[in-house]
Amino acid sequence: MATMNSDGSVNTELVVPEVVIRRLPLYVRVLTQFSSQGNSVISSEQLGLQLHMTPAQIRKDLSYFGRFGKQGRGYDVSMLEQQLRSILRLDRAWNAAVIGMGRLGRAVVSYPGFAPEGFNILAAFDINNDIVGQNISGLRVQSISQLATAVKKLDIKIGIVSVPIDHAQEVIDALVESGIKSILNYAPLSPKVPDSVNVNSIDPVLSLQSMTYYMK
Amino acid sequence: MATMNSDGSVNTELVVPEVVIRRLPLYVRVLTQFSSQGNSVISSEQLGLQLHMTPAQIRKDLSYFGRFGKQGRGYDVSMLEQQLRSILRLDRAWNAAVIGMGRLGRAVVSYPGFAPEGFNILAAFDINNDIVGQNISGLRVQSISQLATAVKKLDIKIGIVSVPIDHAQEVIDALVESGIKSILNYAPLSPKVPDSVNVNSIDPVLSLQSMTYYMK
Repeated sequence: MATMNSDGSVNTELVVPEVVIRRLPLYVRVLTQFSSQGNSVISSEQLGLQLHMTPAQIRKDLSYFGRFGKQGRGYDVSMLEQQLRSILRLDRAWNAAVIGMGRLGRAVVSYPGFAPEGFNILAAFDINNDIVGQNISGLRVQSISQLATAVKKLDIKIGIVSVPIDHAQEVIDALVESGIKSILNYAPLSPKVPDSVNVNSIDPVLSLQSMTYYMK
Repeated sequence: MATMNSDGSVNTELVVPEVVIRRLPLYVRVLTQFSSQGNSVISSEQLGLQLHMTPAQIRKDLSYFGRFGKQGRGYDVSMLEQQLRSILRLDRAWNAAVIGMGRLGRAVVSYPGFAPEGFNILAAFDINNDIVGQNISGLRVQSISQLATAVKKLDIKIGIVSVPIDHAQEVIDALVESGIKSILNYAPLSPKVPDSVNVNSIDPVLSLQSMTYYMK
């Protein structure tokens, strides 16, 4: 488990389970809500109630990153929010590009939820010459051949893949080649990438397929 | 842990962790691929390689549902696929309705990945009178006031929520009231629902926010 160093910085050299990392943004969201409602202290019980988790699990998750709360006194809402944002590197903006400007890509670039959280979609790409050159949600769609140049020029760190499954692996290869380390993948496949590249897939079919288990 | 009953049926009375249930569709996908490539046997090592999991974890996941493989001989691909599909209730079709026919809803109803997996989107709803009555991807958009009637008439079991966050909770309340037990939610909130209702949320911002952790 990670410990606090003597200078107060957090030692996270030990690997934190990915499942814990994936929960942290949910914590940030709840803390932001609590903060906006004027609450300054939150207990692990309150966090658990909001996130459908046990207080013990919440304390365990947070313990990976040091000590945030005082026994019996709860967590300082804005301090915990700030520290989790810093751990997740959400205290800065990140530039992203979308590849594949069909219906899904258009929905992605027009989605209003990214920019307020610091994710700026600065470029859009497609392979189809009928779409290249179009202006969609304020972005001029570029040819995929321009990808590497644009990634450098615009300091793009995140690739969002919204092409059909048949083209997904080659687009992901192109993103990796252009230096992208973080890929949000909407195509229903588990792409092959080097260990240094992190892919999160969004797949509504998989979500549906696990829900039907619970249907009597 | 679940056990096989004496009549060969699987006893799943004990609760299987949700995280395991959420992985099963990935197993099904890999098994389907293997099967289509003409392979009849798969080892937990091969499954692990495809899913970036340890063989031990895979054996543990599957052990919740009984004994599928023979020690040292791997799993029968099509039998395991069939049994997992049966456990997940994927051996039948499920009817779904989409609520919210903005850009996201349009992308959802036109997404070609649902129908081949047995998820049939049979109805589309919106609150906006300019959109109601339009024909989108072969569906005539209905007023949200028709929801309960359509759910009954069309035997709809799944609600897909693609409305803006401000309307999401009321739409989810309406789905619950109409008898829907499974909701795929695209709005960035953790909605309040009775324990008997299962919500899976798709939230690209949360996915991005956990990826930035890994960016040096």
